Amino acid sequence: MTTQDGLLIVGEDLCEQLVGRQQAFDAVQSVFGAMANGGARNFPVVREALGYADALYGFKSGFDRDGQVLGVKSGGYWPGNAEQGLTNHQSTVFLFDPDTGRLSALVGGNYLTAVRTAASSAVSIAQLARKDAKVLGMVGAGHQSAFQLRAAAEQRDFEKVVAWNPHPDMLPRLAAVAEEIGLEFEAVSQQELGAQSDVIITITSAFEPLLMKDWIKPGTHLACMGTDTKGKMEVDPALVASATVFTDEVAQSATIGEAQHAMGSGTLTETQITPIGAVINGDHPGRSSADEITLFDGTGVGLQDLAVASVAARLADEAGLAQRATL
Amino acid sequence: MTTQDGLLIVGEDLCEQLVGRQQAFDAVQSVFGAMANGGARNFPVVREALGYADALYGFKSGFDRDGQVLGVKSGGYWPGNAEQGLTNHQSTVFLFDPDTGRLSALVGGNYLTAVRTAASSAVSIAQLARKDAKVLGMVGAGHQSAFQLRAAAEQRDFEKVVAWNPHPDMLPRLAAVAEEIGLEFEAVSQQELGAQSDVIITITSAFEPLLMKDWIKPGTHLACMGTDTKGKMEVDPALVASATVFTDEVAQSATIGEAQHAMGSGTLTETQITPIGAVINGDHPGRSSADEITLFDGTGVGLQDLAVASVAARLADEAGLAQRATL
Repeated sequence: MTTQDGLLIVGEDLCEQLVGRQQAFDAVQSVFGAMANGGARNFPVVREALGYADALYGFKSGFDRDGQVLGVKSGGYWPGNAEQGLTNHQSTVFLFDPDTGRLSALVGGNYLTAVRTAASSAVSIAQLARKDAKVLGMVGAGHQSAFQLRAAAEQRDFEKVVAWNPHPDMLPRLAAVAEEIGLEFEAVSQQELGAQSDVIITITSAFEPLLMKDWIKPGTHLACMGTDTKGKMEVDPALVASATVFTDEVAQSATIGEAQHAMGSGTLTETQITPIGAVINGDHPGRSSADEITLFDGTGVGLQDLAVASVAARLADEAGLAQRATL
Repeated sequence: MTTQDGLLIVGEDLCEQLVGRQQAFDAVQSVFGAMANGGARNFPVVREALGYADALYGFKSGFDRDGQVLGVKSGGYWPGNAEQGLTNHQSTVFLFDPDTGRLSALVGGNYLTAVRTAASSAVSIAQLARKDAKVLGMVGAGHQSAFQLRAAAEQRDFEKVVAWNPHPDMLPRLAAVAEEIGLEFEAVSQQELGAQSDVIITITSAFEPLLMKDWIKPGTHLACMGTDTKGKMEVDPALVASATVFTDEVAQSATIGEAQHAMGSGTLTETQITPIGAVINGDHPGRSSADEITLFDGTGVGLQDLAVASVAARLADEAGLAQRATL
């Protein structure tokens, strides 16, 4: 990115306009690869309860030396925002010139957080799902689920979406997305979802297992995207322990990701968790058989945010669309 | 600060123009008070060696509930910058609306870091130095020392500055500042500095003691401002152990501040270190006698940066001088 003309400011609208699913996929896949080969590193996460407005606030930061991206995503969760017509999750990404430390770009992070999370599960499907997968199971039907569905749908020749949500009244919105992209849609029970699905994405804020081990078919790929905090849980720890587990960042998977519970009960060890970047880089074969159950524990790392924000800043700069300011 | 009109952008020039020593003093003194009474809290510091460009990079963040200031200072130290005509220390402050989490202001942090650090030692002098102090000792003559001298000079009716620096060729610049504000200036040895000074500011990057306990007069107030990392040291640990120690933040003082060495040798305990905010709030009497040696361990906290940046944003907004952008 050129920085000689001052600071680039790239708002939410411009991010939506410029960063599509393919750009997000490429950026996230590339940085996962760099994380696995040591070319990129996430820094310690800061996450604090403010004790005000019930807000959680914090920072995810890192440096991708290979891609020359340095920065931080700041923000958090303000549960009262919806009443004011604002998004509860508020994020902003700040990028710095790695050669000088000067702020180079300020990028709205709300839309990008959604696409980078969707790109993460999509990368896992591209790398780990069976090529002949036909049925996509969606557990969760909130705001993020539509992004997940759209990105996942492009990775395999899916024919059908089956979905379950704790609040069934939210399913029609997801059905509309499936219809829009030409996929059959069926609202099903959790057991039925397991019985039909070749690929499953879980994207909830659950604290109890929503899918049990015995409900899952051999050969299924699961992308568990909702668990990012101690205590959260989307699937049966026995399912995690019996699956071949991949993740974005092993340290997070073991402590705040879906793998935390199998780790805690001693049925999974950290050495059994493979960074998906190793598969991307060709250092791990990925899926080893048509019957293997693969599980991607998507915990969410700062470098994903920085990667897509860097794309947004570059594209906005090239198109001459960014606002500019000087510090 | 009003945020309904979008994001405020306040550059370095505007900060210099708008935030004077008195505003910085008031903001820093106020937030030190809030820290001591629980109304403001610093979050964990992130500080990483990039492994690139020899750079140190990180974040200091916090929330001042009393003052309604939430934010982060990001940046670090890029040793190669000077060759490119840039400041080696690069900082930017980001402020967020505590009610919604939305980014409200982007403020250049280089000048503000200098004034907030000077304000910190000035607050300690205002609170702890003898009223009849006449001679100000300066240990260190780098970029920051001029800011320290100007802010300190306003706290007592000083008549003379005595100074020492490891590189004596840097002293004339400090002498020029002293002359400008009407103070006699004398370059002295370290021992002579101790013998003459009523107030001493140390502002170096030393890793060995520059002032020994026996050189310091009874009744002296020291503000040790240079030590902010494990291993750094400006004064004799025996001096720290024998002084009445105050600090900005006790946890930092004990671990990365000047007190770390006396703590490490067991000659000082954390309970013997008083937050200066307690003095500001009237909960601690401060100096107890004309002979007491008081020592302020200024470690530097994110809330100081946020406090002065908040002043800059407010003044720029009120004056209609800030750049504006929308995310």
